[in-house]
Amino acid sequence: MATRKIPRATAKRLPVYYRYLNVLLNANKRRVSSTELSEAVKVDSATIRRDFSYFGELGKRGYGYDVEKLLNFFKGILNQDKLTSVALVGVGSLGSALMNYNFHQSTNLRISAAFDPKPALANTVKSGIPVYPVGEMKKQLQEQQIDVVILTVPGEKSQTVTDELVEAGVHGILNFTPVRLSVPKDVQVQNIDLTNELQTLIYFIENNNTKDSQK
Amino acid sequence: MATRKIPRATAKRLPVYYRYLNVLLNANKRRVSSTELSEAVKVDSATIRRDFSYFGELGKRGYGYDVEKLLNFFKGILNQDKLTSVALVGVGSLGSALMNYNFHQSTNLRISAAFDPKPALANTVKSGIPVYPVGEMKKQLQEQQIDVVILTVPGEKSQTVTDELVEAGVHGILNFTPVRLSVPKDVQVQNIDLTNELQTLIYFIENNNTKDSQK
Repeated sequence: MATRKIPRATAKRLPVYYRYLNVLLNANKRRVSSTELSEAVKVDSATIRRDFSYFGELGKRGYGYDVEKLLNFFKGILNQDKLTSVALVGVGSLGSALMNYNFHQSTNLRISAAFDPKPALANTVKSGIPVYPVGEMKKQLQEQQIDVVILTVPGEKSQTVTDELVEAGVHGILNFTPVRLSVPKDVQVQNIDLTNELQTLIYFIENNNTKDSQK
Repeated sequence: MATRKIPRATAKRLPVYYRYLNVLLNANKRRVSSTELSEAVKVDSATIRRDFSYFGELGKRGYGYDVEKLLNFFKGILNQDKLTSVALVGVGSLGSALMNYNFHQSTNLRISAAFDPKPALANTVKSGIPVYPVGEMKKQLQEQQIDVVILTVPGEKSQTVTDELVEAGVHGILNFTPVRLSVPKDVQVQNIDLTNELQTLIYFIENNNTKDSQK
């Protein structure tokens, strides 16, 4: 398994490669050239080769890549050989939409619990997912051994809830709030700030000055 | 105005800096040290200095940064001195949540039109935003001079809709579909793929091997 430190940009492309390889396998394709792969995933082939190089020799010059071998390799890297249960905290409109979101069928990800302080939501099932009162959060996270949480609470509550999550043993937070969270070093935070994403996009339109048009 | 090519990672941090400077100004702070800034935005100070260096000398050694000056500089860079209208295409559960999303009040961003093929939604107003039938998309985008679109249509429709958007003159797409879109070189795509984000987060938890714990 990979032990070298890889750039975050590379790690973010691994699920993209993995998904496309699944498509190829389902279409009974046995091998793929780096050019085909590049066109399908919209990543230039030099970047693909550099990404793959972090994991050793994955293909052969002139032959391309063996689809099934590569797929199984990424499956291991991405932990897709076992089911990962995640929880969602904050069942507002964004939270509800995410509970309803069709995480691609080829992934082994599942939202298995949601938490919200609203009494009307407590102990209901929404989009097939049980919603617990926040008072039960620590207990449920520990019992269900949930390590990863999607955070969709209001910004002003985000740090307090994060502290509780860390105390409950969570190691990964997908943070949809605009707040930059304080966490211990062994907890990973992935920020998805929709305002930032829009502002960055607008910046790129106005300044049209990056090498790559897509990331 | 900036003309040097700046890294995408830097561009993504500009809105974060901008937002925090707004908070400081509202609290009547006149200057900020790079250490304070670093702690507030959770970006190490070497990275902040490198980010700022793309724009020339913004601060003075030993003095720190002048809040108002820096704020005004980023306001210009991020186009916050004028209102930017964006459209949303695909009023499903995620689309509805985004229409309801509180883009931070300090930004000059506004969703001013939405489009959906469902007859029941056509010509209604949802979360204060008019919803038009997709047949009127090109006309409305051009009349309202909308350059940026949030795309929340089903994956299988995303490329067709994208082609129509490009034809209507759109230059930026915030793509929430899992599909990697084909666009001309002068169109920018920012992908927010929720499955990818979760998979990347899980990868980092298992491999805890990047330099920075937050991005």
